[in-house]
This record gives sequence, C-alpha cells and structure tokens, in this order.
Amino acid sequence: MALLSPIERASLAERLPLWRPVSGRQALKRGFHFIDFKQAFAFMTQVALLAERRDHHPEIYNLYNRVELILTSHDVGGLSMRDVQMAEEIDTFAPR
Amino acid sequence: MALLSPIERASLAERLPLWRPVSGRQALKRGFHFIDFKQAFAFMTQVALLAERRDHHPEIYNLYNRVELILTSHDVGGLSMRDVQMAEEIDTFAPR
Repeated sequence: MALLSPIERASLAERLPLWRPVSGRQALKRGFHFIDFKQAFAFMTQVALLAERRDHHPEIYNLYNRVELILTSHDVGGLSMRDVQMAEEIDTFAPR
Repeated sequence: MALLSPIERASLAERLPLWRPVSGRQALKRGFHFIDFKQAFAFMTQVALLAERRDHHPEIYNLYNRVELILTSHDVGGLSMRDVQMAEEIDTFAPR
C-alpha cells in the first residue's frame, strides 16, 4: 500500500469532509460526541472490531463522551488508501 | 469528594509507585504495554466497566498495543481519593 499521490491528497477534503488534517503530521483526525461514556465506548468497540478486521489501527483518544480518532499508515510513513477506506467505513456507523 | 491534602499528595509516589504526575496538571498517568491490540482493548474494556461502576472516567489513549490512562477529578479540579482508589483498583488487573 503506497502513500497517497498529491492529487489523491488534494481530493481528501471533498472525499472525507468530516475528517481534518493533523497539524504537523501526515494523518487525518475526526472527533465524535456521544450522549455519555457508554455510547462512546460502544463506538470505540465498533472501531476496534473494524481495526482488527482490516489489521489497521487508529489512534484512539477518549474522555468521557468524546472520542477522537487519528488515522495514518505507520508502515509507509503517511496517508495511504487504507486510511481513506477506513475513514469511509467509520463514517458509515459514526454519528453525524 | 475533596481535593487531596498536601500530605496525601506527598504520599502518592509511595502509595502508587507505578503512576506518575502529569506535567502541568493535577493528574496521574500510567502507561501500559500489551502483546497486541486485542490484549490492549481487552484491558480498556476492563477499565471501561470499572469506570461505569465507579462513575469515574479516566482519559484513555490507545495506539495499537499501548494504552495510557490519565486520572483526575474534573468536578473538584484536581486529584481526589477517587483517583487514588481507581488507580489502586486498575493496578489489581493491569500487567506489571
């Protein structure tokens, strides 16, 4: 899995409008809000199962009802299509 | 639940030798290493169930096989005995 090309990177804002670049890193992040910790952890569990299935693991940060995910491909040192595809799949079950 | 007294704070290094102060914050942190993500997430799930039972929720940070927990009592703006007791209970099931 290769790094995204400059053209692919330029298309990210349109393809993944809910994800943002991470300052100083080749990575994408999205924050999520929930009613309470139970809902946040249920979401984290969905992400965990997806991460195991894809063998691609986001950084997960949780504080009570808030979750932040950061996606990057450590093996290629930046963003790959694995990150894009994972972000798209997370968006299918994440709250808007 | 009140803030720890100065004497109680001074005893933390001895009472919780695996936990460290967080720079610039009234909080305690501990890092944990596991064989893989599955083991790390199993531990996070134990922490989540404990957090719900005690109604006291640590900050949780995870990257693949590593977990970091940060404990503080937001309601009193610093460390309370709730943090100390939770750290002690986490230590009973965490890897050394």
